[in-house]
Amino acid sequence: MNKIKVGVAGYGVIGQRLADGVALQEDMELVGVADVAPTLAVQALYEKGMPYDLYTASPEKKNLLTDAGIPVSGTLEELVGKVDIMLDSSPGGIGAKNKEIYLKNNVKAIFQGGEKNDVADVFFHGYANYEKGVGVNYLKLTSCNTTGLIRTMDAIDRAVGVKKVAMTIIRRVADPGDYHRGLTNALQVDTAPSHQAVDLMTIMPHVSATGILVHTPVTHGHIITPVVSTKKKISKEQLLEIFRAHPRIRVVRLADGFLGNASLFKYARDLGNPRGDMYEVAVWEESIVNSGDDIMFALNIPQESVVIPESIDAIRAAMKMQMTREDGTAETNKYLGMKVR
Amino acid sequence: MNKIKVGVAGYGVIGQRLADGVALQEDMELVGVADVAPTLAVQALYEKGMPYDLYTASPEKKNLLTDAGIPVSGTLEELVGKVDIMLDSSPGGIGAKNKEIYLKNNVKAIFQGGEKNDVADVFFHGYANYEKGVGVNYLKLTSCNTTGLIRTMDAIDRAVGVKKVAMTIIRRVADPGDYHRGLTNALQVDTAPSHQAVDLMTIMPHVSATGILVHTPVTHGHIITPVVSTKKKISKEQLLEIFRAHPRIRVVRLADGFLGNASLFKYARDLGNPRGDMYEVAVWEESIVNSGDDIMFALNIPQESVVIPESIDAIRAAMKMQMTREDGTAETNKYLGMKVR
Amino acid sequence: MNKIKVGVAGYGVIGQRLADGVALQEDMELVGVADVAPTLAVQALYEKGMPYDLYTASPEKKNLLTDAGIPVSGTLEELVGKVDIMLDSSPGGIGAKNKEIYLKNNVKAIFQGGEKNDVADVFFHGYANYEKGVGVNYLKLTSCNTTGLIRTMDAIDRAVGVKKVAMTIIRRVADPGDYHRGLTNALQVDTAPSHQAVDLMTIMPHVSATGILVHTPVTHGHIITPVVSTKKKISKEQLLEIFRAHPRIRVVRLADGFLGNASLFKYARDLGNPRGDMYEVAVWEESIVNSGDDIMFALNIPQESVVIPESIDAIRAAMKMQMTREDGTAETNKYLGMKVR
Amino acid sequence: MNKIKVGVAGYGVIGQRLADGVALQEDMELVGVADVAPTLAVQALYEKGMPYDLYTASPEKKNLLTDAGIPVSGTLEELVGKVDIMLDSSPGGIGAKNKEIYLKNNVKAIFQGGEKNDVADVFFHGYANYEKGVGVNYLKLTSCNTTGLIRTMDAIDRAVGVKKVAMTIIRRVADPGDYHRGLTNALQVDTAPSHQAVDLMTIMPHVSATGILVHTPVTHGHIITPVVSTKKKISKEQLLEIFRAHPRIRVVRLADGFLGNASLFKYARDLGNPRGDMYEVAVWEESIVNSGDDIMFALNIPQESVVIPESIDAIRAAMKMQMTREDGTAETNKYLGMKVR
Repeated sequence: MNKIKVGVAGYGVIGQRLADGVALQEDMELVGVADVAPTLAVQALYEKGMPYDLYTASPEKKNLLTDAGIPVSGTLEELVGKVDIMLDSSPGGIGAKNKEIYLKNNVKAIFQGGEKNDVADVFFHGYANYEKGVGVNYLKLTSCNTTGLIRTMDAIDRAVGVKKVAMTIIRRVADPGDYHRGLTNALQVDTAPSHQAVDLMTIMPHVSATGILVHTPVTHGHIITPVVSTKKKISKEQLLEIFRAHPRIRVVRLADGFLGNASLFKYARDLGNPRGDMYEVAVWEESIVNSGDDIMFALNIPQESVVIPESIDAIRAAMKMQMTREDGTAETNKYLGMKVR
Repeated sequence: MNKIKVGVAGYGVIGQRLADGVALQEDMELVGVADVAPTLAVQALYEKGMPYDLYTASPEKKNLLTDAGIPVSGTLEELVGKVDIMLDSSPGGIGAKNKEIYLKNNVKAIFQGGEKNDVADVFFHGYANYEKGVGVNYLKLTSCNTTGLIRTMDAIDRAVGVKKVAMTIIRRVADPGDYHRGLTNALQVDTAPSHQAVDLMTIMPHVSATGILVHTPVTHGHIITPVVSTKKKISKEQLLEIFRAHPRIRVVRLADGFLGNASLFKYARDLGNPRGDMYEVAVWEESIVNSGDDIMFALNIPQESVVIPESIDAIRAAMKMQMTREDGTAETNKYLGMKVR
Repeated sequence: MNKIKVGVAGYGVIGQRLADGVALQEDMELVGVADVAPTLAVQALYEKGMPYDLYTASPEKKNLLTDAGIPVSGTLEELVGKVDIMLDSSPGGIGAKNKEIYLKNNVKAIFQGGEKNDVADVFFHGYANYEKGVGVNYLKLTSCNTTGLIRTMDAIDRAVGVKKVAMTIIRRVADPGDYHRGLTNALQVDTAPSHQAVDLMTIMPHVSATGILVHTPVTHGHIITPVVSTKKKISKEQLLEIFRAHPRIRVVRLADGFLGNASLFKYARDLGNPRGDMYEVAVWEESIVNSGDDIMFALNIPQESVVIPESIDAIRAAMKMQMTREDGTAETNKYLGMKVR
Repeated sequence: MNKIKVGVAGYGVIGQRLADGVALQEDMELVGVADVAPTLAVQALYEKGMPYDLYTASPEKKNLLTDAGIPVSGTLEELVGKVDIMLDSSPGGIGAKNKEIYLKNNVKAIFQGGEKNDVADVFFHGYANYEKGVGVNYLKLTSCNTTGLIRTMDAIDRAVGVKKVAMTIIRRVADPGDYHRGLTNALQVDTAPSHQAVDLMTIMPHVSATGILVHTPVTHGHIITPVVSTKKKISKEQLLEIFRAHPRIRVVRLADGFLGNASLFKYARDLGNPRGDMYEVAVWEESIVNSGDDIMFALNIPQESVVIPESIDAIRAAMKMQMTREDGTAETNKYLGMKVR
């Protein structure tokens, strides 16, 4: 079997994890990654012995890398020339510029949530609308919160139908090691509705969604508390059954010591997961409550790694590797080690 | 006019503010406050020149205070003997013990939210059930979150009827200067439903309520995001009108620089409010959104001071100073400077 | 007696407190304050009923204020025309621009630490070099950390001679309510030596100083731990005696409940100090240790308010209100209520 | 060659890392680990498929583990019966109790810093006093801060002689995922001198040490700023040379993006180190400054993992696997991948 050749543009928080995720797919080949400067991520790549070839995302600034002693295998355009598809996790707005290179080279691409929707032909989620992405040239992924949220909304929707969701997003304000963002002893409120609600409605247009987002001074995982109105009333036990059957949702219990988002990060570290990452979103069993006919629960989104599986699904769809949601996500899950427990 | 004589047991975060609030009521006289040890609050009282007489809450430990050079005016029981009513803001569980002294001395008392409900005859909120407290001997206040939340729920209920509320409580984990509690770079989830939802239903039994509480590592104000189902659909504009007409609710705007809970604390400091306290809860105008026929908004609870007005309402009710909600709360508001802006 | 007429440019964190501090001086008159936009501080001034007249610091943007309904008494230049001296607490760099107005109007000015040194004729500290500022037209204050640190270094120097100091500055990263700066779950190291060490040597040129600054995600007070080499060895008891005799240094004890910087903020709130401010720096008694012949201690700097007394000293020096350090600082202390306890 | 058989008691933050570190030593065999309850660490061990055999540390509570479905290979005493030496990382005080089992079974043991000194015959550090531990039955390791600090002090001492050190310890208050400790928006001061200074003097008795410890609300790494008086003056360049030649010290630069403790944690994650751990302490190049004849720098201590190398050194010393500091530490470093860069 010919492996699908994949490149990654932007070797930051998401790009590193995309590269690692692709490298695990036995039916894909990671050709290389591209970045501009010797960031800590690039320095770590070098210290590890360059397991991935690095290309400069900005040929005129190639010396930024070479001056730091980092070996450069070529330019982004040269990388694009060697691949079937690009995963673009450049900073917001850069992906749209890179698209010109992809178009010129007739190479497909998957953009991350930071780009504007019009960069892509389809706004994609592996579980919610896989088939819409099949064979499409340019796909855009949902952002971390939306990706994780849709996993749960799609699962409920397929079981009992989702009519409406009103959610609170308790957002981590920065990633570990991010010194550029930050919040100190403050909660910050955003204008409602949050973009996650709007994005959810784009992917699942039959659902009415709104939400309030509050930033909090922590680094490990957003917590979302959706209040969901379903077509058919659903009990806590039914919801647990649906979530437990989902390979990308992990049900955890306060009683077992999973006290909050930091427990999940600790657990992923203790599991030996690279970088202490977790691909699954988590739902706390003790948080699930009915509100009249609605149901409400607390959902943890590991913001650094949650989009990796759906990004790989997008490669499968765009490259027609698998033609259905079931087959596509199953392959991704197999290689990432995601399974029903 | 004879002033109502009031004592305060427990001169901590709440007790200090109760004492200050009572001292502002021209129809009340603060006879004294009681505490056990030379805490920072008691040391500050001393450094200020003992504006309030201090009584020892534990006669056998009186030397804790006198050894620190703090003048003691007598015992808690002696204080009780001089007053018409006690505000008890002792640590949870102590109020129930103190009640024996109140009973023995035939003195009424208002307990704070940390006590069990059975310490009191009525679970009280100045706006929601004032009349139930009229003439009653022992009242218990709702806790800080519930007190602030009920202000808004009661206001909506009187306008359009509240059927159901599903809320997320983004809780500050400690007060400024509290070194005994704390949370570092973590969000912590509690078992749902939160007690605030249960308490709300006790005060407003026709409402169905549930909620999820998440602790966050900040000190300035809880933020609650209730999703409210009303009997008659209510628009954002109507909700704003209702809240703006309420002397204990302040509508603020992100556009004016009120970016989160810390902005409200800063503003209260800049106003020159003692301790940087604010009695009003705040609602962000830009947070209000309809979710189908429901409405959702973000509400700030200044946890240290929010219960003071309703505690003073409770004195008015218990002592029959005013017989109705309108009259009772109006007097409290007048002396605390709370008004429709 | 004619009162000295004072204006304040920049009504931010420092400017508000400068205005309040001047208003307490019975031999000064606060003519007004100037700012550009309806910040929360200006909105609070308005809600308080405009106790200070407000002037627009940017005539062409006057509508920013008037559109928000804030009454404007004129322009910064008009304010300058009415005063003997300006306290300039504008954002860094703006003071240098404002100086043109001061020069044109032949008005003296005191700049804050954010300006470059060359904006002023003398880099000033009320206790360390008061006499150098006497009669001088343009003075620059030391920044918050340096101001507080010099109080202690100057006191030690006068007693036993300071040769050298190597300090660690554990810096609060943002003020309460500041959403523009922030740090989340991280300590940040600065290039050494820190500017505070350099500034100290400018004010006390016979001392050799260096230091490392580490930013921490808190809002209430820097903590500095200087290691001080003295000409004559000094014991813990002697140091305590020196500090206790200083009206701008407060010795506190862990044993009394002063566990850290947040305890001092809480205590100042409980004292009823406006905004919960404290003018004094604090030294923890239990932190003082000898290191061979050197001495080391932990010092708290209340960053929002610490520079107010020395700024007022600067007015006294520049305006020749008092000709000596002893007289000048004594008058400031008297009106601010600072005294040996 | 017969491998040395090692057991680990207490599978917590340190115990997990001790087990992983021993498992990397090709001349040692990890026989098993012991713990009491199905903590997150134990649950993760189970989810990973029990790479290490688990023994119950409390036979009468074995059901805590078996009820949770965790396979138990026996009791702590049975584990002790199978090994040559135990690494005891039980909670403080439990190690002393376990020692009775070790004595009874005639098995050597290495205790962690939480135990009292008298539990052991020698207070040990691989670089500073390896030879004192050779052949000794019971050794106690220094705590995380002291272990990392001594690496640098010992290196300086061997080069130019250390006379005196006065340090500030900016301590992280909790580990990631620790919900039992915590501090929110506060710096907390400890009584000086800190125990780290006292411990340093026990290991390096010719050095005079003192220090102040301040707790900060972060989870990733302590930062220590020692002011070091040396016998022979040392320049920044010499210090860098000494540190760069040390396999357990990593020199990093702000200019390369290592802005603080969180950058080091991020980098270790990006390196792919299990759990995002780093064994090396780090020194910031730009932090090094001379203070007269003294030298000062900022040192990062990765509190979860720093003691692992010296703990393994202790096995080598106690078991006489290598007889000298050079040989013992070299073997440990080889298997842990620690090398001069």
